[in-house]
Amino acid sequence: MQKTNATVSSADWLNEIRWNQDGLIPAIAQDAESGDILMMAWMNAESLQLTATEGQAIYWSRSRGKLWRKGETSGHQQVVHEIRLDCDEDVILLKVKQKGGMACHTGRKSCFYRKLEDGQWQSVDPVLKDPEEIYGQK
Amino acid sequence: MQKTNATVSSADWLNEIRWNQDGLIPAIAQDAESGDILMMAWMNAESLQLTATEGQAIYWSRSRGKLWRKGETSGHQQVVHEIRLDCDEDVILLKVKQKGGMACHTGRKSCFYRKLEDGQWQSVDPVLKDPEEIYGQK
Repeated sequence: MQKTNATVSSADWLNEIRWNQDGLIPAIAQDAESGDILMMAWMNAESLQLTATEGQAIYWSRSRGKLWRKGETSGHQQVVHEIRLDCDEDVILLKVKQKGGMACHTGRKSCFYRKLEDGQWQSVDPVLKDPEEIYGQK
Repeated sequence: MQKTNATVSSADWLNEIRWNQDGLIPAIAQDAESGDILMMAWMNAESLQLTATEGQAIYWSRSRGKLWRKGETSGHQQVVHEIRLDCDEDVILLKVKQKGGMACHTGRKSCFYRKLEDGQWQSVDPVLKDPEEIYGQK
């Protein structure tokens, strides 16, 4: 991942993106090795710029209204190997190395651990670590 | 994929979804065999219900404001192997078999064919078939 000192305003590649009405774009994180889809979150221009320059996934938390440095509490950072854009310029794909082997706040590898079976969402993937161990008791 | 005659209103699994303000949810399509991420599009309750009952990906076209039966023109349908939901109940993952081996309207396998390199979006994946051959000359 090339480091650059370009600012948000001067980065042409950011201007090619079709941000939604809230100035955001969905970003899918995929395990670069296994191909597993880990999660999807949102980015604003600043978070995408920072993701590119720092080489670690930084999202925009819509609920908290601020930058979300993935792994800042859990230590489960995502080291970015590739940043891709889709044909409509409105979805980002990150190929990452997932530190700690889990992306989900439930202690699972992937956030997509529920599968539609017999008309119900069934949890089909194991919890690898108790969330209390990851985030501390509340 | 279990077939069901449940209607949208009676399907509890649809009610567990956190639809956005437009009544939509993003849906990621992943090649069930290779793990490649093919595309991301949007679904409303009707399209997700139909996807589950018909076993083929049916999206909601935001630009056309109607159901989008993926492959209806190109023949490149997506046969659905699994439907998954993420931990926030606001993103769907479809594991699919991609007919024709290409999901993108540009004639590429995946819509994510551009990669950020040297501060530019570079097309790095090959066109497998001329779009004019897929959709006919305009």
